[in-house]
Amino acid sequence: MARRFTVKVPATSANLACGFDCLGASWEGIDLRLSVSHQPYPATKHTTPTITYTGEGAGEVPLDPYKNLTTRVCIYVLRCHDIGEFPDELDIKVHNEIPFGRGLGSSGAAVVAGVLLADALADLRMTPSRQLDFALMVERHPDNVAAALIGGFVGSYLKTLPAGALDPSSVPMSEVLPEYPRDASKDWGSKPPVPPHEIGHWLRYGWAEQIKALVVIPQFELSTAKARGCLPELYERGDVVFNLQRLAVLTTALSINPPDPHLIWEAMQDRLHQPYRAELIPGLPEITRSLTPSTHPGLLGICLSGAGPTILALHTHNDDAIAQGICSIFAKNGVQCRLEVKGISLTGSTVNWELK
Amino acid sequence: MARRFTVKVPATSANLACGFDCLGASWEGIDLRLSVSHQPYPATKHTTPTITYTGEGAGEVPLDPYKNLTTRVCIYVLRCHDIGEFPDELDIKVHNEIPFGRGLGSSGAAVVAGVLLADALADLRMTPSRQLDFALMVERHPDNVAAALIGGFVGSYLKTLPAGALDPSSVPMSEVLPEYPRDASKDWGSKPPVPPHEIGHWLRYGWAEQIKALVVIPQFELSTAKARGCLPELYERGDVVFNLQRLAVLTTALSINPPDPHLIWEAMQDRLHQPYRAELIPGLPEITRSLTPSTHPGLLGICLSGAGPTILALHTHNDDAIAQGICSIFAKNGVQCRLEVKGISLTGSTVNWELK
Repeated sequence: MARRFTVKVPATSANLACGFDCLGASWEGIDLRLSVSHQPYPATKHTTPTITYTGEGAGEVPLDPYKNLTTRVCIYVLRCHDIGEFPDELDIKVHNEIPFGRGLGSSGAAVVAGVLLADALADLRMTPSRQLDFALMVERHPDNVAAALIGGFVGSYLKTLPAGALDPSSVPMSEVLPEYPRDASKDWGSKPPVPPHEIGHWLRYGWAEQIKALVVIPQFELSTAKARGCLPELYERGDVVFNLQRLAVLTTALSINPPDPHLIWEAMQDRLHQPYRAELIPGLPEITRSLTPSTHPGLLGICLSGAGPTILALHTHNDDAIAQGICSIFAKNGVQCRLEVKGISLTGSTVNWELK
Repeated sequence: MARRFTVKVPATSANLACGFDCLGASWEGIDLRLSVSHQPYPATKHTTPTITYTGEGAGEVPLDPYKNLTTRVCIYVLRCHDIGEFPDELDIKVHNEIPFGRGLGSSGAAVVAGVLLADALADLRMTPSRQLDFALMVERHPDNVAAALIGGFVGSYLKTLPAGALDPSSVPMSEVLPEYPRDASKDWGSKPPVPPHEIGHWLRYGWAEQIKALVVIPQFELSTAKARGCLPELYERGDVVFNLQRLAVLTTALSINPPDPHLIWEAMQDRLHQPYRAELIPGLPEITRSLTPSTHPGLLGICLSGAGPTILALHTHNDDAIAQGICSIFAKNGVQCRLEVKGISLTGSTVNWELK
């Protein structure tokens, strides 16, 4: 009899404010969902998995399980556990609400979904730390995948690995996720590089209950590579200290009840990534400058979500006026956008088994 | 009848680990103490204050109240409040346990003591935030003075001031603390630049009870200017992200009960200031590399205190072995040192009035 389960992975905002490459948060109500049915291992018939896909990215995303990112990550994880193939009659229905290329962690979510899919299919019972190791072999920046996996407001870093350990950043992606040629034999990519243990570390911070989030999603895509390409290689010491001082305060400031708008506003300023991305996101400087807790009571802070172009606004109330303020600046700059009002998702990714 | 009070300001460690220019902590049991007696205002006889000084720096520190740092800061604060002079019969007995030029915040402590002295003498009843404004006009880096004033484990930053506000960093120090020539008239420096309100912001973090500190104080001085002079003007992005990722974790990691040695150890690594100061502090690279939670159980993390040369080691137990490990590396490098085992001071600076 087929077994069924659902994997749900939330949208995330990485690079949160001054927390470039280290702070992320996961949001409830925008997620990537896989509804999965399969025959339990051992696989005997060697059937090809089927994927159907609805929602954001439908029509763009490859449905070949050896090309689709989620299923490629899944087979990578399975092979690292000496399981050569997908289980029989694997049928995956994907529904995706995370738009691509907007800074909401869509690719990180696809990777996390692949890790959780493998874990559930083969009953691997990995710890969250081990799941993160696998996700980090594919997605090398920890802030999206850690927030998506753990849930909530999360800080993360890549550890300094002991001498002699495999350095994930030195492993070509083609070895982790090889492209499968049409005529690939059964052994293609069957001995992939196994991640070392505890590549990354994370910590979940407190989050004051009254703090809500809204995301304003412009209707254009911005590739992470392009958004990263505009960053400088070198930073001035004054700008580095500016962000360090704010980061030291922000993680705690967002946990204090009731939230202090002026403390949070100042602590959410950034000089390391947003100023450089302004040229790629029309209206960004005006949005971060002209909406303040004074002009919009209830507003706590505004920043890019991930590498943008989505804008994240933390607030306690007055979401309509704040969203309208952001959208009208985008509109003046010829950018259409849509609004989503979200709370923080403290559950992170989930796997729910259907009762037999 | 003369009134009497005592001002006590603790030693501090700024630049704590990855928290360059933003994290500081104050220690109990090493402090700068002023025992003060004076006639209440209004001053009528215009007597010259007397200063006697014992402890660290005795013989070096000027005892002329118009040259001594603490009393110069005091008169600056008084004059900002339209009080032109010291009260009558001001007699200050200083006892200082904070060694100079070792990275334990001796000059920040002298400045904070001056602010608190003025506040107590003239009954100014300033808030801690206003006291910090005055301290920041003299000591431009917030981490020592905020930790000394507030107490505990403290994050701080200089705010972005509104357009048109006086920028403290643009005010020459000679206007804040003018040198008083021998023949200075009564009006010399009588209209000093008053600090804008809320120059700095701070936040006190939690601190797990089991975490103890020890400081190993080498017997040589290192001027802050020299230690700062060896830092680069530009930093590579990878090094910046390395510190941001660790700082995001450290502030919370030190509050978690029980402390996790591996989390804290990794979060206390730094690439922005310590590596550059290695050439000024013989043995530093070996100290930070060779003592670990594995070689010395109980150790949580090692870093410079301030700009050095003092070494700060956080630990839960085993202080003897840790201190010995540090001292023996210093000894191998020809550096004599002394050990102080301290807890965190959660009270910060205090002013205690003697009952009449």
